[in-house]
Amino acid sequence: MDKILIANRGEIALRVMRSAKEMGIKTVAVFSEADRNALHVRYADEAVFIGPAASNQSYLVIDKIIDACKLTGAQGIHPGYGFLSENAEFARRVKDAGLILIGPSPEAMEIMGNKLSAKAAALKYNIPMVPGTEEAITDVADAKRRAIEVGFPILIKAAAGGGGKGMRIVEKSEDFVEQMDLAVSEAVSAFGDGAVFIERYVTSPRHIEIQILGDTHGNIVHLFERECSVQRRHQKVIEEAPSSVLTEEIRTKMGKCAVDVARSVNYTGAGTVEFILDENLDFFFLEMNTRLQVEHPVSELITGIDLVKEQIKIARGEAISFKQEDLKINGHAMELRVYAEDPKNNFLPDIGTLQTYITPKGNGVRVDDGFEQGMEIPIYYDPMIAKLITYGKDREEAIERMVRAIDEYEITGIETTLPFGKFVMQHQAFTSGNFDTHFVGKYFEPQMLDHQNEDEAMIAAILATKLLSEKENKNVINKVAQTSSAWQKNRKIYS
Amino acid sequence: MDKILIANRGEIALRVMRSAKEMGIKTVAVFSEADRNALHVRYADEAVFIGPAASNQSYLVIDKIIDACKLTGAQGIHPGYGFLSENAEFARRVKDAGLILIGPSPEAMEIMGNKLSAKAAALKYNIPMVPGTEEAITDVADAKRRAIEVGFPILIKAAAGGGGKGMRIVEKSEDFVEQMDLAVSEAVSAFGDGAVFIERYVTSPRHIEIQILGDTHGNIVHLFERECSVQRRHQKVIEEAPSSVLTEEIRTKMGKCAVDVARSVNYTGAGTVEFILDENLDFFFLEMNTRLQVEHPVSELITGIDLVKEQIKIARGEAISFKQEDLKINGHAMELRVYAEDPKNNFLPDIGTLQTYITPKGNGVRVDDGFEQGMEIPIYYDPMIAKLITYGKDREEAIERMVRAIDEYEITGIETTLPFGKFVMQHQAFTSGNFDTHFVGKYFEPQMLDHQNEDEAMIAAILATKLLSEKENKNVINKVAQTSSAWQKNRKIYS
Repeated sequence: MDKILIANRGEIALRVMRSAKEMGIKTVAVFSEADRNALHVRYADEAVFIGPAASNQSYLVIDKIIDACKLTGAQGIHPGYGFLSENAEFARRVKDAGLILIGPSPEAMEIMGNKLSAKAAALKYNIPMVPGTEEAITDVADAKRRAIEVGFPILIKAAAGGGGKGMRIVEKSEDFVEQMDLAVSEAVSAFGDGAVFIERYVTSPRHIEIQILGDTHGNIVHLFERECSVQRRHQKVIEEAPSSVLTEEIRTKMGKCAVDVARSVNYTGAGTVEFILDENLDFFFLEMNTRLQVEHPVSELITGIDLVKEQIKIARGEAISFKQEDLKINGHAMELRVYAEDPKNNFLPDIGTLQTYITPKGNGVRVDDGFEQGMEIPIYYDPMIAKLITYGKDREEAIERMVRAIDEYEITGIETTLPFGKFVMQHQAFTSGNFDTHFVGKYFEPQMLDHQNEDEAMIAAILATKLLSEKENKNVINKVAQTSSAWQKNRKIYS
Repeated sequence: MDKILIANRGEIALRVMRSAKEMGIKTVAVFSEADRNALHVRYADEAVFIGPAASNQSYLVIDKIIDACKLTGAQGIHPGYGFLSENAEFARRVKDAGLILIGPSPEAMEIMGNKLSAKAAALKYNIPMVPGTEEAITDVADAKRRAIEVGFPILIKAAAGGGGKGMRIVEKSEDFVEQMDLAVSEAVSAFGDGAVFIERYVTSPRHIEIQILGDTHGNIVHLFERECSVQRRHQKVIEEAPSSVLTEEIRTKMGKCAVDVARSVNYTGAGTVEFILDENLDFFFLEMNTRLQVEHPVSELITGIDLVKEQIKIARGEAISFKQEDLKINGHAMELRVYAEDPKNNFLPDIGTLQTYITPKGNGVRVDDGFEQGMEIPIYYDPMIAKLITYGKDREEAIERMVRAIDEYEITGIETTLPFGKFVMQHQAFTSGNFDTHFVGKYFEPQMLDHQNEDEAMIAAILATKLLSEKENKNVINKVAQTSSAWQKNRKIYS
């Protein structure tokens, strides 16, 4: 495999190409009409145009991806994340075309792509699941008996449901029958089906996932956990490794479970097993993602393993060159997803042009991005501008570095999640490590961002006034800038 | 110490400020006329103008630095490297002004600043020195006896000498008298003094140095070695850590020696003990640098220790928070100094404007710089544009990443050491680890850079011709760019 095609765009396309380049492998980009001037196109050795901006006419069209391989002679395909990365049909078509998918088998994708078959596979290895009914039930008396077995609080959810419809949290046994009746009637009216599942309601859940790698020789290792509990709109926005809450014992147990889940489908390549962790530090299997995750860099930084290189080596048929006991956690890594969205307006996408775009640098700072100053964030795709990743000898240093890097990151023309990231890094619940997936709902109010840099500004203003009125120095020039960036902050120049 | 002044400019001023910011310490920049728009001025909380471009009228004027502290209320001074960083008088004046120098004591600077007193201090701890005469001698018979004791080849050098005048390498005992006579008469005519020193001539020397840290509580630790053997014009251009040649045993011995050298002057702060290593892996003390070194980042990357933060903590009177046994080497780091100089023209400075300036990013790449696109490299100071530092799980990966990062680094308008860096990274003597300080003289010819990217270009041209002549695809556009950068290389776009 000396030439690969990256069936993706933006930061992840660049990130994959960088590793390929270090391995001496040539790269082929694909691009839609919206990405003609994108950095991933400029960075690749070759680039193939695959159609209109809408992804269902370009990045999602299997035939176009395979044709681009044939045109350029690429022997392998890296799908990145999103788009076709977890599409079993795509995996099958790639194989049929005589090409190598840098990812797991179509079978593994299929099993893990469906909640029921994923659960069934995991159960073969006695992986802990959120306690509850395994089948949908309708009988109220039966349901109550099961609810008492599971333990309160419990969650009733419509078997046919989705989007929270027909979902009820029941705090205590006495309320069960009334709530069950309501849930069933809601389910009937919404889906025409009154069957429900009952499961333990985790009051204070943390989202913890384990990175795994499996090769075609039957070796599977894990690269420890990532904590992804800080979410907005049920989507991750800040991730870190290791988690501030896991003990060594739980880490080992969770790692073993993740390896077992992967083993249940003979998993090859990089994958992630997601768990929910409750307030008693009991964990339960949620699902497996059969691709490279957005947040993979934090695992790279604490282990020193380049996950994309490992993916490529595994796809080439090589055995993983290290054993579980060779891996250990060094330091702490933190990732902030820098989205083009407005944290003061419900995190809604805020599309536009990057009028200023200066990325932070220096010790312990990694920026994975796909844009440069003057570029537009296309409306057609995920509005992530960059991943800002910091590394330090411990969690405290990773956080301090993240704050420093956020201040140094200068973006104008578009609202971003940068100020929100700073808010989180300075919040006591986060710095203490005592938080869960409800962090945003519990602690964040948009107006909190308004006063983020007020102290600094006020101090500077007072000092400036003092100096000027005392006329100690005739050369004092006080520049008060609009931005809170490290580059043009409220500060004094004596010139 | 909640506000510090950085008595320096360029990349090192920014690098120090970044660590200070992470520690919550305010920063004050100083700037000359040539640096009005410099990044270190924009990054600092406050900035003080200190005079004309010539450093002896600005950055080297002790009074101006101390006055700037008084004006801004800065309690500490970080001197960076160069300028006043090893000036004992400066250190004394700072102390007398009631300020804290983030660096060693004036006494330690003074002793280590002089070769003879440095040697005398080190001898108290039996640190190995290059075998030779301790005093200047004139008697030929005596000299020959000493030469035989020391062992051939030996170096005869004029006691009053400098710049290689009166220096002779003698390969064997039979030639000694003749060469000694010549050396003495050369010395007499050049310096009016025929006295000479005799010392072992190290045929294949490697420059290896040990990073140390000492606190005011008597703790001294070392942070392993840096190999700095690739030099041009007797100045370092590529550094790495660890060295590819040290065994664990020699590393431990050399580390202990470095700690002893530091102990001989009750050293506080960050310092570097330089050794010469010969072909038998015997090492000898050269000198101690009583400041942060340019190449300190490679030590930071393999140990996870932020050296500037440690310097500041030590200056605040804190004890070092880790012990020697807590430190270990993780991975491998490589640094290329990106100088504004022309490797095809004897590495002479090439001053001008950074017409294009795009820095590499991604996993394992750190760029410490002080410039942005459109800026001019001032003629008044050291012509270093940036330090490009890569980190990998092993030496091979650090080198691969360096090549990738060099290709991704795009600088136009000025000649730089980037192509020379790529040449070294791809040279068998370097990749095998089998090199010494004569690397450039032995292996490098300027014209070697002319053909550096020829293979790639030729292949692309052949392919393009083939595709176009076969008219397989009417949409082939072949763009052959001038630069070898990763961003606009010779490559094909199918659009």
